[in-house]
Amino acid sequence: MSGAPFSFQLTHTDGAARRGVMTTPHGEVETPAFMAVGTQGAVKGLTHRDLDGAGSQILLSNTYHLYLRPGDALIARRGGLHRFIGWQKPILTDSGGYQVFSLAERRTVDEHGARFRSHLDGSSHLLTPEKAADIQAQLGSDIAMVLDECLAYPSPHDAVRASMERTARWAARARRRQEQLRAGSADGVIVTNAGQAQFGIVQGGVFPDLREESAKRTVDVGFEGYAVGGLSVGEPNAVMYDVVARTTPCLPVDQPRYLMGAGTPEDLVEAVARGIDLFDCVLPTRNARNGQLFTSRGRLNIKNARYAEDDRPPDPDCSCYTCRSCSRAYLRHLFNAGEINASTLNTLHNLHFYLDTMQRIRNAIAFGRFDSFRLAFLQALSRRNGGTDPPE
Amino acid sequence: MSGAPFSFQLTHTDGAARRGVMTTPHGEVETPAFMAVGTQGAVKGLTHRDLDGAGSQILLSNTYHLYLRPGDALIARRGGLHRFIGWQKPILTDSGGYQVFSLAERRTVDEHGARFRSHLDGSSHLLTPEKAADIQAQLGSDIAMVLDECLAYPSPHDAVRASMERTARWAARARRRQEQLRAGSADGVIVTNAGQAQFGIVQGGVFPDLREESAKRTVDVGFEGYAVGGLSVGEPNAVMYDVVARTTPCLPVDQPRYLMGAGTPEDLVEAVARGIDLFDCVLPTRNARNGQLFTSRGRLNIKNARYAEDDRPPDPDCSCYTCRSCSRAYLRHLFNAGEINASTLNTLHNLHFYLDTMQRIRNAIAFGRFDSFRLAFLQALSRRNGGTDPPE
Repeated sequence: MSGAPFSFQLTHTDGAARRGVMTTPHGEVETPAFMAVGTQGAVKGLTHRDLDGAGSQILLSNTYHLYLRPGDALIARRGGLHRFIGWQKPILTDSGGYQVFSLAERRTVDEHGARFRSHLDGSSHLLTPEKAADIQAQLGSDIAMVLDECLAYPSPHDAVRASMERTARWAARARRRQEQLRAGSADGVIVTNAGQAQFGIVQGGVFPDLREESAKRTVDVGFEGYAVGGLSVGEPNAVMYDVVARTTPCLPVDQPRYLMGAGTPEDLVEAVARGIDLFDCVLPTRNARNGQLFTSRGRLNIKNARYAEDDRPPDPDCSCYTCRSCSRAYLRHLFNAGEINASTLNTLHNLHFYLDTMQRIRNAIAFGRFDSFRLAFLQALSRRNGGTDPPE
Repeated sequence: MSGAPFSFQLTHTDGAARRGVMTTPHGEVETPAFMAVGTQGAVKGLTHRDLDGAGSQILLSNTYHLYLRPGDALIARRGGLHRFIGWQKPILTDSGGYQVFSLAERRTVDEHGARFRSHLDGSSHLLTPEKAADIQAQLGSDIAMVLDECLAYPSPHDAVRASMERTARWAARARRRQEQLRAGSADGVIVTNAGQAQFGIVQGGVFPDLREESAKRTVDVGFEGYAVGGLSVGEPNAVMYDVVARTTPCLPVDQPRYLMGAGTPEDLVEAVARGIDLFDCVLPTRNARNGQLFTSRGRLNIKNARYAEDDRPPDPDCSCYTCRSCSRAYLRHLFNAGEINASTLNTLHNLHFYLDTMQRIRNAIAFGRFDSFRLAFLQALSRRNGGTDPPE
């Protein structure tokens, strides 16, 4: 742990696209960056050395899952999440809200917070803005997220307004609690990372006026960074891109901007073009386990019979371990045979592709060539309408 | 592929224990050696680089499984098993017999061979000594095993005699076929490894007279190496050790000896003490997936509640990646959470422990200190009656 305070330094801009360096107590993150999702303190199918080898700079972990099992108190007694899982680079934790709101019939929400029943044992729990801050303080992530209310898409304007306003009130409560935690005046909470930053979340659905108001109110509370939440929940891509484009200008230029839960390779490039610095998504890891590989020429479904005797690597342009050592024929066999390492090998590739894409984005921005990169990247992806299996 | 012909060189002896070097078309194997089981062309939970990093010199793969899926013909068209799976070190394949005989109601056996129905789709197949040789020729392993008849334990003397005699007749047929394959006179079979060796298998159950006769008849046929089969099938340990002790003196001193399917760490040491050079067993890999870790102080069941807050590595004396980077508390969490990498991390450790044990055995033999090593090793393992969880 470097112990450096959290900071963000913009180093290059290219149109609305930005390149920068985010400094955290556990080291630096070059942005734009993608965070692999390690739900329960591990990216499914990968060891940390694989994760590190793929070029991961920062890991996302889920507060809801860790709170329920093994419990934030146990993790705090181990010295915090970094020590418990043996990952010494930066970690961002979500607030747990997204999982709780996904529980549908198993939760009720009021102004105080969200009451929910555990998906593991049915036990009842209360998640409030303060509690979400406390749990994350015990986990000791480098970046904690405030609890926000997540609405289903589509929702009407008045419902989204009411929810956005509640999210703003919750943001103020979360910030107040974070200040107590920093001041050491939160009894019974073990703060395992004194330099933890806290990010606010802009809501407002697909309504520009609400997004603008939400951004203003969240920035007024004042956080170390800002997320755009409530997207990638079923709305059309063009709508998501538009909301991002209208929201980022309302956020401070000198602080990091995080688009939560997005997305496809196309989404990453399009959101960077609209001023986003940070991403997370389960797509590369989850799809890997289902046999879908992201390549520079579109998606490839390894279970397809056409690959049974295909000696080529998944992506001839990729330098990952999987592409250097496995043919499509072997990967298809492993997937069909139900071998555990099919998940590992596919995940290694997909994550490498995502992280390599971010590196290429960062380089393009530094050289002022982001627009031409973006065009070439999107053209290659869609070479065969819609990005399914490559044509060769 | 070095293309070197198969050979075996004894370099040291210490009592009945032997150290040597087995040369194959894909490189050398220092013996005594342990082969990890890669049933379907992969060790469950590990990538080949993990397998390599753990110190694996040679991989075992199962003919029955590969024959059914993806098929030996497909693998032969890919250039053989090494190329198909991307593993360039030596490979030994079994004959498929053990799996077929395990099918119980799904198979019938006569002098010609074994007819069985696939566990995958119920399709009917015939495995003969010649067919087992053909499949392995197409796979192109460095060491092929003859088809033998495997009886359940216990079986009466006359049944074991009849079966042993059939195994001897099958051995002669398998060898004849191997010679045709080498001479290029086996139509329709793609020989993907011209330097493939073939090992015979000694049967005879727990009866010394039958073991002796089986060894004599198998050696009379003449193979590049010899296996002791039909053990580790439920007989008491002392009986297995005794059969090994009585069989190895009947085998050529200048050829490798392989104890099939054994065993526990104790079994490895005890069998080396009785002249065995080569081992395979699913124990380290299968038990890893079930949460059982082999350590220098006995077995450790990671799901045990006592490890929930235990910050120590699984085995403080182990230098594997898992022990260097994971606490028992974290491994227990991963196992309880059903994370894929619990299998990977546990398998990495168990395999490292087995391979490190073999390295220590080889060193002890070279220094003429095998007996004192054996005593210290077994004492440490049984420090707490029966080798369950370590006492600390």
